[in-house]
Amino acid sequence: MDFSQVFPIFSKLTDEQQARILSVCQQSRVRAGTMLHDGSPECMGLIFVRSGQLRAYMLSEEGREITISRFFERDVCLFSASCVMPNMQFDIFITAEKDSELYILPACLYKNLMDESLAVANYSCDLISHHFSELVWLMEQIMWKKFDARLAQFLLNERLLEGTDALVITHDKIANHMGTAREVVTRMLRYFQSENMVSLTRGTVKITDAKALAAVAGEA
Amino acid sequence: MDFSQVFPIFSKLTDEQQARILSVCQQSRVRAGTMLHDGSPECMGLIFVRSGQLRAYMLSEEGREITISRFFERDVCLFSASCVMPNMQFDIFITAEKDSELYILPACLYKNLMDESLAVANYSCDLISHHFSELVWLMEQIMWKKFDARLAQFLLNERLLEGTDALVITHDKIANHMGTAREVVTRMLRYFQSENMVSLTRGTVKITDAKALAAVAGEA
Repeated sequence: MDFSQVFPIFSKLTDEQQARILSVCQQSRVRAGTMLHDGSPECMGLIFVRSGQLRAYMLSEEGREITISRFFERDVCLFSASCVMPNMQFDIFITAEKDSELYILPACLYKNLMDESLAVANYSCDLISHHFSELVWLMEQIMWKKFDARLAQFLLNERLLEGTDALVITHDKIANHMGTAREVVTRMLRYFQSENMVSLTRGTVKITDAKALAAVAGEA
Repeated sequence: MDFSQVFPIFSKLTDEQQARILSVCQQSRVRAGTMLHDGSPECMGLIFVRSGQLRAYMLSEEGREITISRFFERDVCLFSASCVMPNMQFDIFITAEKDSELYILPACLYKNLMDESLAVANYSCDLISHHFSELVWLMEQIMWKKFDARLAQFLLNERLLEGTDALVITHDKIANHMGTAREVVTRMLRYFQSENMVSLTRGTVKITDAKALAAVAGEA
């Protein structure tokens, strides 16, 4: 997959703009666990996911985390390009959750393109409003949904992502995704286990009754 | 104040675009309490605040509210123009908090302008990312900040907005701003009162020690 396939409006650019992009666009392979953006105001650029999986999260002063977005094949991450999103006065961290192949487009080039190309400017609006919409959804979950429903939904989502019932994930990692403490996750998982919805072993959560979990998640 | 003063990029538009805007832009006066947008997918348009004060909030199925944004003189509200923010699959409500004078720009016209004007497209990006940034800030508050600090901060902010120590506001209204239950607000206000930071009478919260409140809010 070349860059033109991950950048949906590539064909709407002029030959000169396309050439400029291709001359500076970097391809990068990163291992799972790599920190791609550490919340510094420094503007790395847009990250296009060719393959793999990224995670964007917020971090509290006490070291608590909450996942705000995840990026898969063909997704584009703007959070590493704060100059594209002015008024941003906050820190978002980005790590690779899986080994990933990325294209990185320097922010200064992208900013220039936004200033000269209607297609790029409108594409950016779409991206930012997509992120906004995701955040509203997350906020709704946090504000109005009970933790058991959120956790059940998280497990079902992981099952879909990983394509397996046996999720290799620690309680700590789940807590970091959900913005809560490990103890809270452990307690709820034990409750799910007592209801025969999951079975727990060290480092693994095995989903044994997805239907019942879906009912808890409110999807049934 | 005419429309060109509330729309900062008005001068960057062509004469034809300016004329088109002025021919369809509606001026509207609304009373405090008027519901401007009830979360329906129907696309009203952009709201420019000439004077007054608006409030945008989310609503749970159980009727709980939380304020996500407030709009003052010269602010622009995009939430009532969901077609400008594609991918929006959520409901945001907008009411007038005070008697307000507004300009309303129909969404279809604005969408057309975005498709033809770089200035409008980039302005929209700025607006959306500003909203995004506000939402991240709010999420940080909700996730990591204790309720006493949030409430103290809310009261100090109201004091600034209203220009008085004696805030005419019910516990119920405060709860709706903060996304919590009235009882939770009442309990905390009573604690503030016992610490001589506020004094409570029916329908009024009077701030008696702003410095102490600022310390609770973490601003000191």
